[in-house]
Amino acid sequence: MNNRATAPLYEALIRHADRQPHAYHVPGHKQRAPWDEPGADRTYQELLRIDVTELSDTDDLHHPIGPIAEAERLAASAFGADETCFLVGGSTAGNLAMILGTCDADDLLLVQRNVHKSVIHALALAGARAVFLPPKIDPASGLAIAPSPDTVRQALDRYPEARAVFLTSPNYYGMPADVKGVSEVAHERGVPLLVDEAHGAHFGQHPDVPPSALQGGADAVVQSTHKMLTALTMGAMLHLQGELASRGAIRQALRMVQSSSPSYPIMASLDLARRQLQVKGKHMFEPALKATRVVRQALVELPFDALEVADPLKLSLYDRTGRLSGFELQEALEREGCLAEMADPRHAVLAFGPGSRPADGEALVAALRRIAEAGSADGEAAGLNGGASGATVELASRGFGEIPEPVRIRRHTGETQAIPLDQAVGRVAGEWVIPYPPGIPMLFPGEPVTSDAIAAIARWRDRGARFQGAADAAFRTIQVLTDMRRRS
Amino acid sequence: MNNRATAPLYEALIRHADRQPHAYHVPGHKQRAPWDEPGADRTYQELLRIDVTELSDTDDLHHPIGPIAEAERLAASAFGADETCFLVGGSTAGNLAMILGTCDADDLLLVQRNVHKSVIHALALAGARAVFLPPKIDPASGLAIAPSPDTVRQALDRYPEARAVFLTSPNYYGMPADVKGVSEVAHERGVPLLVDEAHGAHFGQHPDVPPSALQGGADAVVQSTHKMLTALTMGAMLHLQGELASRGAIRQALRMVQSSSPSYPIMASLDLARRQLQVKGKHMFEPALKATRVVRQALVELPFDALEVADPLKLSLYDRTGRLSGFELQEALEREGCLAEMADPRHAVLAFGPGSRPADGEALVAALRRIAEAGSADGEAAGLNGGASGATVELASRGFGEIPEPVRIRRHTGETQAIPLDQAVGRVAGEWVIPYPPGIPMLFPGEPVTSDAIAAIARWRDRGARFQGAADAAFRTIQVLTDMRRRS
Repeated sequence: MNNRATAPLYEALIRHADRQPHAYHVPGHKQRAPWDEPGADRTYQELLRIDVTELSDTDDLHHPIGPIAEAERLAASAFGADETCFLVGGSTAGNLAMILGTCDADDLLLVQRNVHKSVIHALALAGARAVFLPPKIDPASGLAIAPSPDTVRQALDRYPEARAVFLTSPNYYGMPADVKGVSEVAHERGVPLLVDEAHGAHFGQHPDVPPSALQGGADAVVQSTHKMLTALTMGAMLHLQGELASRGAIRQALRMVQSSSPSYPIMASLDLARRQLQVKGKHMFEPALKATRVVRQALVELPFDALEVADPLKLSLYDRTGRLSGFELQEALEREGCLAEMADPRHAVLAFGPGSRPADGEALVAALRRIAEAGSADGEAAGLNGGASGATVELASRGFGEIPEPVRIRRHTGETQAIPLDQAVGRVAGEWVIPYPPGIPMLFPGEPVTSDAIAAIARWRDRGARFQGAADAAFRTIQVLTDMRRRS
Repeated sequence: MNNRATAPLYEALIRHADRQPHAYHVPGHKQRAPWDEPGADRTYQELLRIDVTELSDTDDLHHPIGPIAEAERLAASAFGADETCFLVGGSTAGNLAMILGTCDADDLLLVQRNVHKSVIHALALAGARAVFLPPKIDPASGLAIAPSPDTVRQALDRYPEARAVFLTSPNYYGMPADVKGVSEVAHERGVPLLVDEAHGAHFGQHPDVPPSALQGGADAVVQSTHKMLTALTMGAMLHLQGELASRGAIRQALRMVQSSSPSYPIMASLDLARRQLQVKGKHMFEPALKATRVVRQALVELPFDALEVADPLKLSLYDRTGRLSGFELQEALEREGCLAEMADPRHAVLAFGPGSRPADGEALVAALRRIAEAGSADGEAAGLNGGASGATVELASRGFGEIPEPVRIRRHTGETQAIPLDQAVGRVAGEWVIPYPPGIPMLFPGEPVTSDAIAAIARWRDRGARFQGAADAAFRTIQVLTDMRRRS
């Protein structure tokens, strides 16, 4: 029997609702539409029926033995894992749990420097020591990808006590790491590879899309099922394969960082998203792929270009003439009713997905055409906007070339203050310092400030790099922790 | 203008959806119903329209300046806070953030012993030292409430360096702490009071319901808006008042423990739940109160009774004859289509809420009547089932009477093993040890095992206490951490 076409958790919730039991349990709405607002009732009414709690027929996310366990088994099979944990706290929860489940206090983790903030938070919560590995730089864009297998090998030679290697793949722009190469290096030493694949839940599910991190041999992988597949937001999965990653400790860490009242609609949407993937297969991506092809073909006649990346569902558009920055392009697109995923100083990044239609490609082309026409009426190009150059790539390699000493990210409840950049050595950073490109953080909040870091920031600042979100964008000053506490 | 009747976040999401923008951002479903399953489409279709991401008109939970900030301001006003943070990770996220935002590593926290597991997890993640305060025992039921103001005063005398006092109020059964008394004691020393009010989001909102923790003077309070009000599951709020609790550090801790892709439907449901509370006021609780009155009146003719507690929306039913344990009563009710919130060895606990109707009271009475009739056909009572007795209360006072030494809860990735109880002193506990009643944990996972704890467990075991969820319910052995690591 082909049970891949079933959605055991969703179906269990509907069966439960259809029985119409009397509810003397949370939530307080008791599965009835409680709001007088007619519109709100319509928005939530059907969903409230399945917004239930742990009951004898609805299972328990934190100790699954019924329909949640069955739904997780089907997901493991669909994504090629030995075991899959449903997440209701997004990939954030998965990243926290992979690291908390792998590192006791003082343990050492090899982790690429350009990671999602949840990874830095996990290091701070775990009290782990991190060796931040320099990533490879994409020569065409100057953007950071992930460390190479060679870099990981050097780091493991120097730090054989490392508990794990942590990679992000793909990056926000759709560029994957060499997961296979890194996993081989790690497994030679018996070290597990943990991968934040938040932006790659569709990887390995279509011939035009790169293989997944699990196919590359990763031991634990987190995927945002909501980002590139069709779950509700915050629906994500943590996949485990093999015996190197400690499954029990990772499950235990999930119990620490996720709600003890997890959302059944989000869990059921994971079940339905997996079912859809298995029933429709690669066909579910065709409308989105067609939309991106429409855009790529039209770009030859427009003053915009898109980064060449492995993930065909990501379009990182930039202005070939240098007139519009990535932020300005994002804003111009928004005025045309086209909402991008994010922007950096050079690129507006667009994410297509199973819900995209070919008409979305046509609408984007029409918007770009109008933006280009308005621009040629405006006149001259503004010139340099932080794009890739030989010098950028060389600088990136120089600034992040060596395997550094381990550092601890300090969790703190104190205040921050601005001090002159050249007086910050020996203090603890109080803000993110991320020049674009390459998008590699030079300092994390809680990281001890070294003279190397200050020299690198000054060098990049003087070369015109843009520091996104910095308190002082010109970096004459930097935020550091005070020693002040609110109470002493 | 009475803007309490608006729901600014929900309305912003509907306006956004009505504009029908082209979405090149996450989530992958692009606000369209993507599932072929006809039932699933119906369940989720309307909701998908508002399952969006951070956009220029939808604001950012982690740095709110638009409709989320406005919705939080209205919530602060409705609940009597100076500032309110919407939570999408349940009260779990709020408890983690209150403690992580208050305690750096090695800081000392005064915390009652009978707390939700998220509080223990927070202590482990914070690396804080905890002084566990003995709770008061309710004489009628033998159940633990919260520490008295006198206990807190003694503890503050001995540990003036404490960063905060942490209480849970009400407990699961609807018994509140003396929040006002404790907050006065804490504030005399300039120490903030943090309260887990997960089960009391309705407190202070109806004349028959006890005052809220904020009304009692607490500085930071977490409420599960989904439990006793009408938000979606995982929707909760963290309220702050005054200047003693560090707002910036607590907000920063929320950024660490909550998803960087928070769920808009959950956030909007918080906005709608607050709006409903303000528009309907105390009338929204009348159907539920009527339902509980129906049950209480009928109990006089039935062999069941309900604990007398301050919260009229909680019914903790027990079998006066001692025939059915709380677990058996819960199961018998379930066979009658009545689903309770939880059970302990003596009680089945039922939670009523704004979605309850008088018919739920009548259905419960009919179910209890059928259970009683089946029971009298069955014959004899089973006798003792762990209820309150003078001896229990005296034992509880004796076992938990003194202010103990500070302990650290150890976070660990290792395995556990069973060893004989009398050999466990000096090891680290690997499981929860909770006798019912009083429901006070004698050991937490990660807590060092003392000879006092072992003596108390043996004493309670020998008196016939029930240990819920223990690996060896007879407590000849206990789970402790091994020193084994999967890799060395």
